[in-house]
Amino acid sequence: MQDWLDEIHWNADGLVPAIAQDYKTGRILMMAWMNRESLALTARENRAIYWSRSRGKLWRKGEESGHVQKVHELRLDCDADVIVLQVEQLGGIACHTGRESCFYRVFEDGAWKVVDPILKDPDAIYHAGHRHE
Amino acid sequence: MQDWLDEIHWNADGLVPAIAQDYKTGRILMMAWMNRESLALTARENRAIYWSRSRGKLWRKGEESGHVQKVHELRLDCDADVIVLQVEQLGGIACHTGRESCFYRVFEDGAWKVVDPILKDPDAIYHAGHRHE
Repeated sequence: MQDWLDEIHWNADGLVPAIAQDYKTGRILMMAWMNRESLALTARENRAIYWSRSRGKLWRKGEESGHVQKVHELRLDCDADVIVLQVEQLGGIACHTGRESCFYRVFEDGAWKVVDPILKDPDAIYHAGHRHE
Repeated sequence: MQDWLDEIHWNADGLVPAIAQDYKTGRILMMAWMNRESLALTARENRAIYWSRSRGKLWRKGEESGHVQKVHELRLDCDADVIVLQVEQLGGIACHTGRESCFYRVFEDGAWKVVDPILKDPDAIYHAGHRHE
């Protein structure tokens, strides 16, 4: 009864990229990875739950920061190997740098230029030693 | 003088995910992959040039279909391992199925449901034997 999960073409590590987009503004907030369990939990709980490759465990987005992503819609692409999540970003901050979006650098004149402000000091968001939530 | 390319954290295969978003509507059209050469060419030519993993060669999006993506902006994320492209999608069709976006399936009632129309028959877009451009 979980055919929808079987339709996904997981990569060699059992993961797919998951793109989180603000459901109101359309801004792309971040891209992370999901495994079968995290996608199943995301659909069940209607909040974004990723797989942290660096920590090798489930990452309940916002578990420490409070910056939970409430899921409004899940989409799958033609090759069944990429997910798009329409989310409501609680706190208005998706990035661990304290910015709205992780995509805060624009290519200009041959360089990546930071164009978005830090909305909240990461030290005020996270406890010591847990910068990536 | 290509420091901006050295800042990218390429994966073990020398690739990064590249997300194409409609620069006017914000709709996410597709996600593909880029290597160093394809990203350099994308920036130089202001059109999306991906790396086709299945064919193992550069993929000048629209080379056969005419559905070129003109690049308006390139962004890089905090971890320097994902690119977002703001594009103008010529022909209004990004997907090889003939749809506007590759993300045409929505999760509903435990299943992936096709919700977007085919705008043009793929047979009319591609020549025989070249379905993925």
